[in-house]
Amino acid sequence: MIMKETKVSSIGERALISRLSEIFNAPEGEEKGQEGILIGAGSDDCAVLYLKGEDCLVVTTDMLHRTTDFPAEMTPWQMGWMSAAVNLSDIAAMGAEPAGLLMAIGMPADTEIVFVEELARGIQACAGFCGTAVIGGDLDTHAELTITGTALGRVKKSKLLLRKGAKPGDLVCVTGYTGSAGAALKAIQSEKPVSEIVLKALFEPIPRIKESRQLAESGAVTSMMDTSDGLAMSLYDLSRQSKVGFRIWEDALPILQEVREFASGPEELLEFALYTGGDFELVFTVDPKRLKKVQNICNLTIIGECTEYETGIMLESPECRLTAVKQLGYQQLKAETAD
Amino acid sequence: MIMKETKVSSIGERALISRLSEIFNAPEGEEKGQEGILIGAGSDDCAVLYLKGEDCLVVTTDMLHRTTDFPAEMTPWQMGWMSAAVNLSDIAAMGAEPAGLLMAIGMPADTEIVFVEELARGIQACAGFCGTAVIGGDLDTHAELTITGTALGRVKKSKLLLRKGAKPGDLVCVTGYTGSAGAALKAIQSEKPVSEIVLKALFEPIPRIKESRQLAESGAVTSMMDTSDGLAMSLYDLSRQSKVGFRIWEDALPILQEVREFASGPEELLEFALYTGGDFELVFTVDPKRLKKVQNICNLTIIGECTEYETGIMLESPECRLTAVKQLGYQQLKAETAD
Repeated sequence: MIMKETKVSSIGERALISRLSEIFNAPEGEEKGQEGILIGAGSDDCAVLYLKGEDCLVVTTDMLHRTTDFPAEMTPWQMGWMSAAVNLSDIAAMGAEPAGLLMAIGMPADTEIVFVEELARGIQACAGFCGTAVIGGDLDTHAELTITGTALGRVKKSKLLLRKGAKPGDLVCVTGYTGSAGAALKAIQSEKPVSEIVLKALFEPIPRIKESRQLAESGAVTSMMDTSDGLAMSLYDLSRQSKVGFRIWEDALPILQEVREFASGPEELLEFALYTGGDFELVFTVDPKRLKKVQNICNLTIIGECTEYETGIMLESPECRLTAVKQLGYQQLKAETAD
Repeated sequence: MIMKETKVSSIGERALISRLSEIFNAPEGEEKGQEGILIGAGSDDCAVLYLKGEDCLVVTTDMLHRTTDFPAEMTPWQMGWMSAAVNLSDIAAMGAEPAGLLMAIGMPADTEIVFVEELARGIQACAGFCGTAVIGGDLDTHAELTITGTALGRVKKSKLLLRKGAKPGDLVCVTGYTGSAGAALKAIQSEKPVSEIVLKALFEPIPRIKESRQLAESGAVTSMMDTSDGLAMSLYDLSRQSKVGFRIWEDALPILQEVREFASGPEELLEFALYTGGDFELVFTVDPKRLKKVQNICNLTIIGECTEYETGIMLESPECRLTAVKQLGYQQLKAETAD
């Protein structure tokens, strides 16, 4: 018997986005001198609008809900920080400089004013950390706290970093550590103690704005995105847009010693590092001839290399055994997918 | 006994916005040549970003919820149209040309795919009508259908229309009709029949993009905003920003004959025309010496004149009796306020 898939939960976020993109069919145009939409919905962390001359505007929006996006342990300040950070991380992903944040907040009518003020202070702290400000928004009542942020950024067209652009032979790098947010989530769920550093990776993710600007200026980066949906999902997105495969070196993955010790075994460690998501680091590819240009500008780790598209995304163990990286990670509408 | 106001419902949307604006304290700067934020949160329909040379970018965001913003009679297509229209109307309010729309949609996991597709077609139809497109967004699951739109627009700094700028002696004008959406809402609530034209004013509001562009180009308009929260609230907003009062001529208000007949009496008619909101027309002030420049460019009605700030906002009856226009209208967090 063939079950017809009629509910959104049956097809998952990415399939639904693809269906809706067909309805929206935003006109994309790269012609020089023509102001308009450079890159439309779906293919990158942000949409890109072509302004005058070399200037581009990037813009992104993200909706968060209390029950699904904010663990009960989070403070209102952290919810505010997180709501700003998820959007500003998308600006960082494009190599852009933040140019403003808008926050639409729906909240229960009986929300305490001090709660909303703490939320606002968290938003403001993150915006300020990223060198920008809240320039607009909307407030209304809603059964469940829901926050939709929109972030704007500016970048020269020649410095814009996309998911597309990686070539076989390029090196794969990440900023910071991977797996900390995953370990924090597990610690909360299983009520085990972890350090403040690990918890903060989940509750107060740092948008990599400074690193992103330096990487964009270096001219050495060939593609980039953030790892918010997990490193594995990000590699699949880069692969799809750049038409490359990846070989990731398992023992090169930058994982905090505490996270290594917290994991129940190598399998769970890979779960944290590749699949759980929530880390908001940058994953990017570098032309090996220009590697020197990026090596000293920020805390980065080379974790692998780009291969031919056909070879897929493989993980190489310390014993040189190759296994396929699964297309699993954080996805809305459906917690996990293997389509 | 003094009750301390600790819940957001006790202070209303505008008071809460004012508190949060202090936390966000977005830097405003008008210095020529400096790229940055021209007008921050709170004072206009959109935030304004100063780009290169004469160029400005305007941006707005609005969150809508199924139970509070979409009457049960609305089709999914109309919910989509409405979600795009409320944001594009804010772009029109600034005299700007739409430059893209982002839609973040949270929906129950068991939402039918055809429902979402119809919603998307409604969004696309409104975006297309306004000469723009959906360039990005976000999809996730949420207990109640929640749609946050963000619209971008472009305008030359010299053509930008703000709530600030009206002078005593200027004429007050509105596009289209006022009160149609209010009558439609009442008709639905009381299960009385009204024409398709009246229902569409509520369900498929037309963002006045074309009119707005022509008004901005005319150079005759001194201040402008949309009437989405009701004509009375809009007049109060214009008054506050421009530091003018208004004398509105009751018999000049453009009201459909059907709406006049539908109203139970003169009091309800004023309720529809001034206080209910939902019409999404433009209300603007015109330098009387330049009136000819706007008279033929769109369907507009002169409804009154600007007076000194101290005289307040008055309604002049056909018998020349003056009564104060109340500061009532559509306001989130609190249905009505008279602060």
